[in-house]
Amino acid sequence: MNEQHYIDSTSLSTLLEDVRRVHPLVHCITNYVTVHDVANIVLAVGGSPMMSDCIVDAPGLTQIASALELNIGTLNPALIDAMMACGKVANDRDIPIVLDPVAAGATPLRTQAALSLAEQLRPSVIRANMSEIKALAGAGGSTRGVDASIEDSVTHENARDMAAFAAEVSTRFGSVVVCTGALDVVTDGSRAFLIENGTPYQGMITGAGCMLSATTAAFVSACPQDKLSAALAAAVLMGVAGECAEQFLRDREMLGNASFSQRMIDEHMLMTADTFVKMAKVTQLF
Amino acid sequence: MNEQHYIDSTSLSTLLEDVRRVHPLVHCITNYVTVHDVANIVLAVGGSPMMSDCIVDAPGLTQIASALELNIGTLNPALIDAMMACGKVANDRDIPIVLDPVAAGATPLRTQAALSLAEQLRPSVIRANMSEIKALAGAGGSTRGVDASIEDSVTHENARDMAAFAAEVSTRFGSVVVCTGALDVVTDGSRAFLIENGTPYQGMITGAGCMLSATTAAFVSACPQDKLSAALAAAVLMGVAGECAEQFLRDREMLGNASFSQRMIDEHMLMTADTFVKMAKVTQLF
Amino acid sequence: MNEQHYIDSTSLSTLLEDVRRVHPLVHCITNYVTVHDVANIVLAVGGSPMMSDCIVDAPGLTQIASALELNIGTLNPALIDAMMACGKVANDRDIPIVLDPVAAGATPLRTQAALSLAEQLRPSVIRANMSEIKALAGAGGSTRGVDASIEDSVTHENARDMAAFAAEVSTRFGSVVVCTGALDVVTDGSRAFLIENGTPYQGMITGAGCMLSATTAAFVSACPQDKLSAALAAAVLMGVAGECAEQFLRDREMLGNASFSQRMIDEHMLMTADTFVKMAKVTQLF
Repeated sequence: MNEQHYIDSTSLSTLLEDVRRVHPLVHCITNYVTVHDVANIVLAVGGSPMMSDCIVDAPGLTQIASALELNIGTLNPALIDAMMACGKVANDRDIPIVLDPVAAGATPLRTQAALSLAEQLRPSVIRANMSEIKALAGAGGSTRGVDASIEDSVTHENARDMAAFAAEVSTRFGSVVVCTGALDVVTDGSRAFLIENGTPYQGMITGAGCMLSATTAAFVSACPQDKLSAALAAAVLMGVAGECAEQFLRDREMLGNASFSQRMIDEHMLMTADTFVKMAKVTQLF
Repeated sequence: MNEQHYIDSTSLSTLLEDVRRVHPLVHCITNYVTVHDVANIVLAVGGSPMMSDCIVDAPGLTQIASALELNIGTLNPALIDAMMACGKVANDRDIPIVLDPVAAGATPLRTQAALSLAEQLRPSVIRANMSEIKALAGAGGSTRGVDASIEDSVTHENARDMAAFAAEVSTRFGSVVVCTGALDVVTDGSRAFLIENGTPYQGMITGAGCMLSATTAAFVSACPQDKLSAALAAAVLMGVAGECAEQFLRDREMLGNASFSQRMIDEHMLMTADTFVKMAKVTQLF
Repeated sequence: MNEQHYIDSTSLSTLLEDVRRVHPLVHCITNYVTVHDVANIVLAVGGSPMMSDCIVDAPGLTQIASALELNIGTLNPALIDAMMACGKVANDRDIPIVLDPVAAGATPLRTQAALSLAEQLRPSVIRANMSEIKALAGAGGSTRGVDASIEDSVTHENARDMAAFAAEVSTRFGSVVVCTGALDVVTDGSRAFLIENGTPYQGMITGAGCMLSATTAAFVSACPQDKLSAALAAAVLMGVAGECAEQFLRDREMLGNASFSQRMIDEHMLMTADTFVKMAKVTQLF
């Protein structure tokens, strides 16, 4: 990469202050594996989580929500119906939606559900890994398709190509795309950023992606006029918090994946603007 | 407050010893967000948790339970049916029930379910926040209704009025009412107590209320002859454990909301009669 | 016990290396109480967890799995159907299955489901406590039945009899049986081993059994040619990790059940061959 147009980390860090000031109500329809951590991390960034997934109950909670997060981790047909119903309430009221298409591509139910939710609800943000992004692209007949030449891991070498691919998906659904992995790519279709924060421990816990999708919902609701910056700020925060958590536990000789998971949530609560700005590593790709 | 009729903390602390001696089996039909912490905190006080929510399976477990805890956090119609069926088994066998009407008032399903469960099952204890208590009062046509003059936060200034309001609800359902918040009020309709224990961190985690409802079920089953004292003891324990957890983590520079949540459970297990008695702050309001 | 034919702990410890090298995909259909810890402990041993329990979705994931773990902790009829469907996919493809018949014997639904799953799917391993093993034996008309003379706790005195009883169940279903408690017994019907590792704290947390069932699935998938050794290795690892966790937290004056639970997972990730070999306490009973 030649360009090193670091964006203004200070302005990203102020978005965390916005979330803490606004206390957004985040309605999460999410999987039962990581739901507890999702609730705690929404609280850690200053939001308030509401979990409800029954079609008789959930749409009424979406009405009072600041944001809606849809995660298909433990999917079933009734859940898809509830997500669709809540999504329509959100759309009608301009409540931002974040979609987490967990394991799209792995089964037809997941791929089809992810596509339907993305197409019909036009989420503000799609937060996924590259395999899931490819499933969203390929099943819909993107000209690029699930191109074998596009590998699933973002590296410094392929980052620009990966971002271009993610940008197509972004344009197609009108959603900011946050593609996470060892390196993260965030794009709104016309611009793309690379985030180099994070630690391998985030891949050794369950729920790092789920948690980021939920904090992203909190950030987007606090900054609806600039979804790209909001999504970037949430992703940088996750990476920086992960690095802080690893260092914290390593210093105390307490590092392990379960402890890391909990400390990473703590670090979201403890994060200062200084640490955020000093540690953020964001580059503009295009 | 003029009156400072501190009740005998020593007798409350002996109830914890009773729970540890009796090892009550607590059948919980609870939400999937905080269920893991609920199970661990029941174990921490010396009980044994059983989770089952399917109407084909759950009533058979209620039969062998010492107490039944019903929490409507992630509600759906099938769950209401299971709660009702298990509640009837509990009623038939004089097994105490604790009801946690999570977010009653927020949606019709929740308000209606909370009311039906309270009216038909006559729980030994209702553990809720003031908004939920108001939903239970208002929807049923209490003369006071959901009075706008009764704010949702209990303060030293309004504690007596709040307690009087909670006492009406207590009388209506024949249940001890535990109303939690920055200050807690516990009443059996004729007497009311104020608990000043706790820490703001209990509001920054998911599940503090759910956990208290479950420990309350354990305490009530170990002391069915005095539901008021049992509910008081569980609520004081939660507050004291929270204070201990905050101090413990602060001393080690390890304080964050996720770590607090786990340490608060630990403190339930580690609690001594000395600490309980020394730290309990209970005042009789009337 | 006269015989002290300690088996080769070194060869058991190499199985952990195998799991870490193979990175098995473990499909878990498990209860919502302990599912988060189950996912994290699969990651801690080097595997990759997949959770899905809907019959429309789950069998497609079993197809790509290295192992299938079935846990009936929060059971309902739809879940039994999904387990059976996934189990058949696993059987067709020689994917090993581990069955955890939680609370079999406590309700007819559980007993019947456990028996049907064991009989029809012939799991590689059944991981249970002695009461559940007895339920599997008795309900099916074993000549021994649920013999009152066979108590539920394995002691040094009754270990050989308990192992003989477990061996009958093992033979009946063609499954290695891992019977856990203060002492663990592992048998393939013809041989039986006693494990003396572990700590009482494993009985003060929710999910120790669930977690072991999941790690056992990871181990068996990495060593399908020797299910007995694989199951033994997973059970010894859990016991040793528990002892390490207790000591670690005690040294730091941080011991409580919730913290223990998380640290025990960490210890799975941190386990070295040296510690494993040095601490393993395995005796051959017959």
